Amino acid sequence: MTQARRRAFFVSDRTGITSENMGDALLEQFENMKFKRSTYPYVDTADKAHGLVQIINRAAEEDEARPLVFSSIVNDEVREIVKTSKGLHLSFFDAFLGVLEEEFGVRARHSVQSRVHNLERYDARMEAVNFSLNHDDGVSDKNLEAADVILMGVSRSGKTPTCLYLALQYGIRAANYPLTPDDLDTTDLPRMVKNHKHKLFGLTIQPERLHDIRQERRPDSRYANLNTCRNEVADAQAMFRRHGIPFTNTTHKSVEELAVAIMQECKLKRRF
Amino acid sequence: MTQARRRAFFVSDRTGITSENMGDALLEQFENMKFKRSTYPYVDTADKAHGLVQIINRAAEEDEARPLVFSSIVNDEVREIVKTSKGLHLSFFDAFLGVLEEEFGVRARHSVQSRVHNLERYDARMEAVNFSLNHDDGVSDKNLEAADVILMGVSRSGKTPTCLYLALQYGIRAANYPLTPDDLDTTDLPRMVKNHKHKLFGLTIQPERLHDIRQERRPDSRYANLNTCRNEVADAQAMFRRHGIPFTNTTHKSVEELAVAIMQECKLKRRF
Repeated sequence: MTQARRRAFFVSDRTGITSENMGDALLEQFENMKFKRSTYPYVDTADKAHGLVQIINRAAEEDEARPLVFSSIVNDEVREIVKTSKGLHLSFFDAFLGVLEEEFGVRARHSVQSRVHNLERYDARMEAVNFSLNHDDGVSDKNLEAADVILMGVSRSGKTPTCLYLALQYGIRAANYPLTPDDLDTTDLPRMVKNHKHKLFGLTIQPERLHDIRQERRPDSRYANLNTCRNEVADAQAMFRRHGIPFTNTTHKSVEELAVAIMQECKLKRRF
Repeated sequence: MTQARRRAFFVSDRTGITSENMGDALLEQFENMKFKRSTYPYVDTADKAHGLVQIINRAAEEDEARPLVFSSIVNDEVREIVKTSKGLHLSFFDAFLGVLEEEFGVRARHSVQSRVHNLERYDARMEAVNFSLNHDDGVSDKNLEAADVILMGVSRSGKTPTCLYLALQYGIRAANYPLTPDDLDTTDLPRMVKNHKHKLFGLTIQPERLHDIRQERRPDSRYANLNTCRNEVADAQAMFRRHGIPFTNTTHKSVEELAVAIMQECKLKRRF
């Protein structure tokens, strides 16, 4: 099916992250359709709303199909102005806020609160990010007892981004330990992580994909060689199995999916 | 208003990130109400759905008020089973998917696709995270021309988590440079970033908050002293103003808000 690209506007009076999430989740349900996306965060005044209406209306005139407007605008006045545009409006707060007000028997705030800074959350995040950075790539076994989880895998199997995502998104203190060829030569667990076996979680990856990633980094090296990749991955998986360490394959998973899988498997609770 | 804590279930047949976002955005609209949250990701079979219904129904019996169920379950069968529970259901796909199907004149997939791994996105992310790690804390000016943005601020003003969030969420290559007392003693821009002035973005922070953060790290040091913090922050802001560098105050902003503000101000485009 060929079709002109629909324009999709993600609009919010805050960061726009909710409206982007919502729009993405919906649009990916339509196969073979392509969309031209743009995000408009902080549309929080009547003026900005009128400006946006003009932009949407211009798109509506230029394109064959009307633009989609995914809106998570909580301010009633601003939201109503945006809804006067010629787009198709999918308004998050319109759909659900009334239902909750009725259930609770109270009126919602209907406004962006200059949110009292959640210091606790900020601190948990900062601490977790610092922890992950200080325990990236097995650089230090200091305070490894404070780790919530220790990711283990061969070089370039996806440990670092997953640790950082766990830290930023959930405040989880995630260390990581890279399995070196030396580690993989023995049947024992690496000395540094041996005493933390119950916190270990393994990452594995398709050797072909690992080869591609390493090839980018050190072309035509022994490190990137497909056979090296195959052997390392096989040895790592054997180690995970031998010691009963839970593990997952990162090849077809996004960082979000990996993080959630690890939270579930290791029964971790978000720290904020 | 005192009230028993309502239970809020965030349910999905995928990661649950969308349903958590959606639920949080709605619930924070109700001031003074407290909720007891739990997330159930990967509810993707009829069996798991029936199991969850039992959990929700047990909560409904224990509590005075009925539980809230924020659902972003795309599989019709699974979603319908979850909807038989005694909770109040706010179902994301029920609200919006039909509207889009009608607009497009096609039926949506209604299933979780074992998503073809988006390699491009993965690579952009990996590259951005590696870039940020390699350019954290001004450790290297190598390849600084490849940076999309360079965050500048005094020690502990929030540069690192913001850089990592920009990398993970948007694939942005964000470097950061810590303004040292030596840098702040001169009127010139630091040598390392001087040639990249158009990419600089400043972070500032309330001196009292900075004092608290530094106090945690090095109690009662000159570094943490409130006067030191006041002077450093004043000098940094003076530098930003003198050189026309845009800047923002991090004190009351979340990492998400900072990232979006920087994207907007620096006109950055997400890389995936």
